Formats: sequence, C-alpha cells, structure tokens
Amino acid sequence: MKVALLAVGNEVLTGKTVNTNASFLAKEIEDIGGKIVHQQVVLDELDAIAEGLKTAYEHADVVVTIGGLGPTVDDLTREGVAQYFNVPLIYDEEVYKGICSYFEKMKREIPLNNQRQAYKMDGSLILQNNNGTAPGLFYEADGKVVILLPGPPSELKSLYYESVQPYFLDQIKERKIKRSYRLCGIGESYAEEKIIHLYDKFPHLNIAPYCSIDYVDYIVSTVEEHEDELQRFEDVFKSILGEHIIGSIETEIDDEIVALLKEKSLTIATSESCSGGLLSSRLVNVSGASSVFLEGLVTYSYDSKMSRLNIDSKRLMAFGAVSEEIAHDMAKNLAEMTHADVSVGVTGIAGPNGGTELKPVGLVYIAINVKNKMFIDSYIFNGNREKIRQRTVAQTLYLLYKYIKAL
Amino acid sequence: MKVALLAVGNEVLTGKTVNTNASFLAKEIEDIGGKIVHQQVVLDELDAIAEGLKTAYEHADVVVTIGGLGPTVDDLTREGVAQYFNVPLIYDEEVYKGICSYFEKMKREIPLNNQRQAYKMDGSLILQNNNGTAPGLFYEADGKVVILLPGPPSELKSLYYESVQPYFLDQIKERKIKRSYRLCGIGESYAEEKIIHLYDKFPHLNIAPYCSIDYVDYIVSTVEEHEDELQRFEDVFKSILGEHIIGSIETEIDDEIVALLKEKSLTIATSESCSGGLLSSRLVNVSGASSVFLEGLVTYSYDSKMSRLNIDSKRLMAFGAVSEEIAHDMAKNLAEMTHADVSVGVTGIAGPNGGTELKPVGLVYIAINVKNKMFIDSYIFNGNREKIRQRTVAQTLYLLYKYIKAL
Repeated sequence: MKVALLAVGNEVLTGKTVNTNASFLAKEIEDIGGKIVHQQVVLDELDAIAEGLKTAYEHADVVVTIGGLGPTVDDLTREGVAQYFNVPLIYDEEVYKGICSYFEKMKREIPLNNQRQAYKMDGSLILQNNNGTAPGLFYEADGKVVILLPGPPSELKSLYYESVQPYFLDQIKERKIKRSYRLCGIGESYAEEKIIHLYDKFPHLNIAPYCSIDYVDYIVSTVEEHEDELQRFEDVFKSILGEHIIGSIETEIDDEIVALLKEKSLTIATSESCSGGLLSSRLVNVSGASSVFLEGLVTYSYDSKMSRLNIDSKRLMAFGAVSEEIAHDMAKNLAEMTHADVSVGVTGIAGPNGGTELKPVGLVYIAINVKNKMFIDSYIFNGNREKIRQRTVAQTLYLLYKYIKAL
Repeated sequence: MKVALLAVGNEVLTGKTVNTNASFLAKEIEDIGGKIVHQQVVLDELDAIAEGLKTAYEHADVVVTIGGLGPTVDDLTREGVAQYFNVPLIYDEEVYKGICSYFEKMKREIPLNNQRQAYKMDGSLILQNNNGTAPGLFYEADGKVVILLPGPPSELKSLYYESVQPYFLDQIKERKIKRSYRLCGIGESYAEEKIIHLYDKFPHLNIAPYCSIDYVDYIVSTVEEHEDELQRFEDVFKSILGEHIIGSIETEIDDEIVALLKEKSLTIATSESCSGGLLSSRLVNVSGASSVFLEGLVTYSYDSKMSRLNIDSKRLMAFGAVSEEIAHDMAKNLAEMTHADVSVGVTGIAGPNGGTELKPVGLVYIAINVKNKMFIDSYIFNGNREKIRQRTVAQTLYLLYKYIKAL
C-alpha cells in the first residue's frame, strides 16, 4: 500500500518546527508494511493544499495530511481537501458537542472560533480526538483515500494509534514483524564487521543498525511468512554479539543497573573527575535510585582528590591525576569511605587542552571495584569535550552493567 | 525570492532520519529574506527525482536538493537533475583530484566507487566540500536554478554557509535583519505577558519566542528599512526584561558563569541531592572550568549528607533533607570545607514518589553562598523526574549567574 504524507503550514515550511510528525508517521506506517512514497510540506493556502493533494495522488492512493485543523483562519486543510474533491463542507452538531465537552472537561470557556472545527467534508468520517479539539477526518472517493490529522504531536500520535493504524493494519495484507536488539560497549563498525555476513545469509530480513552515543541498536524486520528466518537470525546474532546485548530498543542501561543492584542488594558510590557528575546524574535519574546509590564525589581538582578521597599526594605527583593508579585509588578509597559494594573511579582528559603525546586528549581510565575485586580499563575516546565525556559515561555504564551482572 | 526544497532518499522518506536538513535550510533562507514555498521528500529513483523537480518548479524558481550525492548506486540526485534538464553528465578531473586529496588527508585508501562523485551536469558549477567527498553543484538553465547539497548535516551546513548563503544574499534584494535575546529565570508565558503589548506597538517587527528547559529566546526580525523600529523595540524590551537577558541565542549560561568566575577570580564548589551531579556536570563541561571549579559532592543519602558534608543529624531529622535549613547547611558547610568563594546546596523531591501534602513532588530548595552571604530560594517545579531535575539545574544556573554578576 503506497502512502503519501502532506504537511500543511508555514511553521514547518519556514523551519521553525521540525517535521517530526512526518518521520513519526512514516516510521509507523513502514513498520507495519505500508510504503511511504512521497512527502510534501505546503503553504497554508487553499490552492496550495489542493495542488499538494493532486501531486500526492500521482504517487499514492492514500494521503495522510498533517496539521491545519485548528480554529484560526490560517487552518485550511479541511477547505483545501473539500476543494480538491469538489465536495461541500457541512456542519456536524455532534462534533461541536464533542468540542464543547472537551472545553468543559478542561473547565475553560468555549471560544467562538472553535465552531469552525465542527465542519467536515460531506461524506467523511469523524476520527475522535481525545487530546484536543480538532477531530481527525477520513474521506474516500474515486478510489482515493485521505486522512486528516491535527498538527500537535500528542494529538496526532494518539489519533494515529486509535484510528489510523487499525485502518492500515486492516488494509495491508502482508504484515510486518520486527525485533530489536540494544548493544552496549561496542562501536557500530566493529559490531557491523562481526555480523556483516548475516546480511547475505538471511536474505528475507531487513537488518538496520542505528547508532547513538550510548547504544548501537539493530532493528530487524520481515514479513510474517519469514518468522522462522527471523528466529534463526536471532540465535546466530546472539551467539556472536550476546555479551553486548542488554535488551531491546526499549531498554535503558541506567534502569538495568539500578535494577541489578536492587536485585542483588548492592549499594554503589561514584567518584568522577573528567565526567564531572554526568555518571552519578544518570544513576540518580532512575526513580528509586535512593535505595542503592549512596553518594557521588566530583573530585575535579588535585586538592579535592587529596582532601575528599584521601588520594596520596606522592602517588598523585608520581603518576598524574589521569593514570591507572589514581583511578584505582579513587575507587578503592571511595569503597573504604562509604562501604559501598560497588565503587567507581573515573579520570581522564576531556580536552580540548591538557593532552600530551603520552597522555592524549580522550585518554580515560575507568576503575570499578566490585565487592573488593578491582577492574581497571583504559580507553582513548574521540570527539569534542562534550562527546568524550558522554562516551566516558556510556562506557562506564556498560562496564558497571557487565561486572554487576556477572556477580 | 521563492525557494523550494527537495530531499532525496529512503532514509528520510521512511522516517529513519528526521528531515532536520530541511528545517535548517528553511530557517536560514527565511532568515535572510528568502521565501520557502514548498518542500518535498522523494524516493531515490531517477524518475522520482525528475518528477520532484518538476513539481518544485511549479512553485519556485530556485530549488535546493538535499542528499543523494554519495558514492553508492542509490545516490542518484545528479542523474535525476540531468534527466530533468536533459543535459549530459560529464567527468571532472579536478573534482576527482579533490576527492583523492580528501582521502589522502584522512590517510585512507580511495574507494573505486567515489569516482562517481566526480561527475557533474554539463555547465554546472562545483561547490567545494571541505568536510566530505561529495561536492555541491550549482546549475542554471531556462531561468531555473538548482543547487545540489549533500545529505550529511555537517557537510550540508558548511557548504550552505560557504557557497549557498552568499548566492542568496546577493540575489535577495529586501534584506532581513534580526536580533535575538536569551532569557533565563523566567517562564515563557510570564515573559510573554510582560511584553504582549509590544506586538501591536511595533507592527513591522516579527517577534518570535522559543522556549526550552534552560531558556526563553526571542528572535526579532524585520527588513532593513525598519531598523530604527528594531532599535526602539530593543530599548523597551530591555527596560522590561533586562534582568533576565543573559545575551543572544548564542550565549550559554554555563560559559557565562565560568567566565564571570574567572573574571572575578572566584572559585566554586557544589553539593547536590536531587540534581545528582547534573549541576556540576554542566560547569565541568565548560572548557577551562578547572581553574574555577573545585569539587562537587552528590550527597544523595542521609548518611552521605552527614559523613561528607557534616550535616548535623539532629537538624536533618528535625527539618528533613528537603528543607531550607538543610540547603543552607549544605552550602555553608561546603564553603567551610573547600574555602570556595561560591558554594551551592541543592535539595528537593524529584519524584515520582516521596512527596507529601506539605512537601510535594517538585519542591526544591536552592542555597547559594557567595562570599559568606547566603541566598536561599524555594521552588515548586512541574514535570516528570527528569524535567524537575533539569528545571532545578536551569534555575540554579540562573541564580548563580545573577548573584555572581552582582558581586
């Protein structure tokens, strides 16, 4: 089923608003087996909307419009669609009652101009909007289908799931299925290298990697008849990359770490230099972290390393703040001070200055003490100051996950 | 000057990639007085690109294409444009040399398929790409102009600024001017209420507010002939909202705070509970923060507040961790321990649990000790756990800016 998207409105056209509605709809519709073949953004003018529909129907049989259903005079999508199909707009008392009850629920007065939203193309179906005043509309004529959705993302999304997705699910015969895998502690190209041969081996699967600072995600989809192949792929994929898979794309590693700590009745404390509190902040952001997270120290200066973490000044001078030894001491002293089961010491050079040939910008030492067993790793991360700090935290979280899980 | 945008490629079409290139270009071109009249996304197929151009020229005289200039077989924008204008593609040795020297600079071998990128429409101009292999192209025929830009955002942006913006600046006769103001420590609706009467008073200005967690930005633009009006607006705007203006939209408050501390030769230390290290992390992210930032304590548990910050256990029990008194003690004790000129204590209830009628979720106390003068403010922030924590840090940064500046 070929689908085209038509966004209406100057805010998107002039770049004030990024067209995330279009990417949302495209992704959702493609995910269930529809095919997006064309996208447009047009001016909120009658002729532009009608022209846009004409162009869209040259590519697709179903057009989803985005926006232009509001109460103000520049909201013209209904009128533009009516003009294209040459069909009158009629007033729908039921819709108006729905709008009124929405305002009553919000305990607000009903503005007069909202009456405009009670008009629909003659013969169209109303798609109830529970999050706003503008209902969606569904209209079919001459073998062409148009679905009108409102622009505010929360309204568009809920209307899509409630009314539009069921329609597409009914119409699209070849149903898609998909699985996703979230990887940590491995770069995109390194992961890709390890599984590149699977692309040929599983010809009916669509294997798509997505990379962010924290994760490499693989989304793998196919049609229902190849579910066996998807299962076989999963087995091989897990045998190759299993140690890096933390769950599906819904999984957040911070949540997993806090959950593991709770499950194993362990406490944690952190000491950070270059990451400056980013690590503790990630753990504290998990609701309920208070039952496992004891404290965090951001010992950014030499002085604070000595006074707060009792780092030996001679060792600090001998090895330098960014060294395996000091990372070790940070984690070890912290464990002694706090009696935390898991303690972390992170020290590195985030740049842009402070690097030397021996210790370049991006060099980071991560020490993790788990029940008196010390693991120390070193890395050289690339990117600017912010990226190096984010990569440091991403890697530390992965190591925490791995070591705590192995307990 | 009417401009249309034409993005080419399945990644954008299927929603995998959000079309931020289009919003970037639209905003930039509108900012200097161009008018974006139509946007499209089409399949990476020859006919689709040629058809897309045809549609675009029904709306505009200048079309900017996005993407499809890469080395792989599905990169077909050059070919599609050549087909539309019925002009041959020719090989350009100079371009190929440029591509080769790019690979040499990166110390990488030259893949064979990059040779495709050395072709251009006969009669087109090359727009040099210093950040990647695909050059941009400029072609004019029959009164129609097409500008081809590569898809990777960093390449597109630098090519735009280097080669495309100068062209538009030359072509657009009615030049736009704009100024921006970045506000902190005030909500969007409150700011709007204070200046709502200015919209009518300055009819030739386009006054646009943009809101984020950290800032409320006002971007005000007009055409050159109304520069006087813009200046008068600025005077009135500053007299009303001056205390909240920290600079233009380029200004980052973290940078400003570190700069102020350096300028006044002051040091800073932070102690955080609910914000969990977010505050220290913001300061540490500023390059050169090491000369002013001493240390940060994330005293999340009762124990850590007592052991690390010497908070009196009786006071902790009497007032509770989230109280004016404990915020005060956190900042005061930290100043004594570290001798920092500026010290911060932040404590609050980020939720979703832990709130009571007297101390609801979102209640936050911020204590700032500046050279032995203590300022304590309390707030009730709304939103989920993450939002409350981000708003806490945004407000703390604003208070720091205000108090340090006033010194």
